[in-house]
Amino acid sequence: MTHTTPEIRLQELDIALPTPPKPVAAYIPCVQTGSQLFISGQVPFADGKLLMTGALPDAGSTEDAAAAARQCALNALAVARDHLGTLDRITRVLKLTIFVASEPGFPDQPKVANGASNLMVDIFGDAGRHARAAVGCAALPLNTTVEVEVLLEVKD
Amino acid sequence: MTHTTPEIRLQELDIALPTPPKPVAAYIPCVQTGSQLFISGQVPFADGKLLMTGALPDAGSTEDAAAAARQCALNALAVARDHLGTLDRITRVLKLTIFVASEPGFPDQPKVANGASNLMVDIFGDAGRHARAAVGCAALPLNTTVEVEVLLEVKD
Amino acid sequence: MTHTTPEIRLQELDIALPTPPKPVAAYIPCVQTGSQLFISGQVPFADGKLLMTGALPDAGSTEDAAAAARQCALNALAVARDHLGTLDRITRVLKLTIFVASEPGFPDQPKVANGASNLMVDIFGDAGRHARAAVGCAALPLNTTVEVEVLLEVKD
Repeated sequence: MTHTTPEIRLQELDIALPTPPKPVAAYIPCVQTGSQLFISGQVPFADGKLLMTGALPDAGSTEDAAAAARQCALNALAVARDHLGTLDRITRVLKLTIFVASEPGFPDQPKVANGASNLMVDIFGDAGRHARAAVGCAALPLNTTVEVEVLLEVKD
Repeated sequence: MTHTTPEIRLQELDIALPTPPKPVAAYIPCVQTGSQLFISGQVPFADGKLLMTGALPDAGSTEDAAAAARQCALNALAVARDHLGTLDRITRVLKLTIFVASEPGFPDQPKVANGASNLMVDIFGDAGRHARAAVGCAALPLNTTVEVEVLLEVKD
Repeated sequence: MTHTTPEIRLQELDIALPTPPKPVAAYIPCVQTGSQLFISGQVPFADGKLLMTGALPDAGSTEDAAAAARQCALNALAVARDHLGTLDRITRVLKLTIFVASEPGFPDQPKVANGASNLMVDIFGDAGRHARAAVGCAALPLNTTVEVEVLLEVKD
């Protein structure tokens, strides 16, 4: 990753970030304090539709849920770029919290979470390696299967 | 909001903050590090009673749950004022996490969360606009319907 | 606690920290930014086995779940020591988030969380008193009963 940047990696990976969501209420897509950028919990909207709804395992495969987690992470990065101007101002992915709608006893939240985690390393290299918590929720907003919260370290 | 302050807004809105909870255990109501003030998860106690218990939708209306979320946020601000001396030292509401006791498939955690989010903007104006995650939980402490965690940016 | 240190307290309490987990994926055990150390969510592994699985109350007693929460906290401190070299660089326990696998209506997440909270005060004294949120989850990774996330303030 020595001679590349997150923006170059996006191009190499042929990833187009989605249009960032607009603020719709008292809460907003992200807030920065010092070098920390807190991004609101993202759900897997793609082209205006949720990629997956319902609780696992009935809602679908773990692989599809991991793809939905990746989409949540993409949406979070779209918010970050909208705020920062460029992903190249992100110096570290600090923490991801992955909420997975789960029926009792479902044990594979980490496999779902890897969809978001792996994207961060694909784009940011070592700076994308992060602390993480993955937990199972009874239900999530709009009945989405996955919601991802992201905390970033950024520079001026 | 130019010529006002959070404390003046409280008076204009005729809001009396509740008595802050006393520390009862190894954990305490809030901890400050640098300019960040972490407030422990608050439940909707009002005059010593929980405003709402049980999981949505059976526990009651979304509107009543939003009022409970607002009470959680008031309790968090009471903790902050007890620590800071005045709300006027709060420079930004950074993040809210709203946990809503939910039956499987309940999709309206964001509507519940708005009860807490709107209060922050009512009191702090633009500085009250925050990052947010709202999730559905299988159950919450004391069987409360809502729990709200608050992170604030503060100044000396 | 005036003439002692966290490392001395560990010895006095006859507590041996477990072997810290190795990074196994895109996420890693902890990430530091400035004076904040974010530790990934820990489950109650002891000698390679989870101390407790399933949701409360059916999974077992609240006391046993509190012991599992204590083990999660020990695992988090093992991660911290592996990163910092010594627990004596920890200046404050900032926040714990305790996720407890819960059946609908289970109200005692705080009693479970005390297993982790009390350990922090046993080892760090007043510096171990922290902000906290305890919530009930539908399910957790590997079907564990408890997961604990820890945020620490550290010095050079």
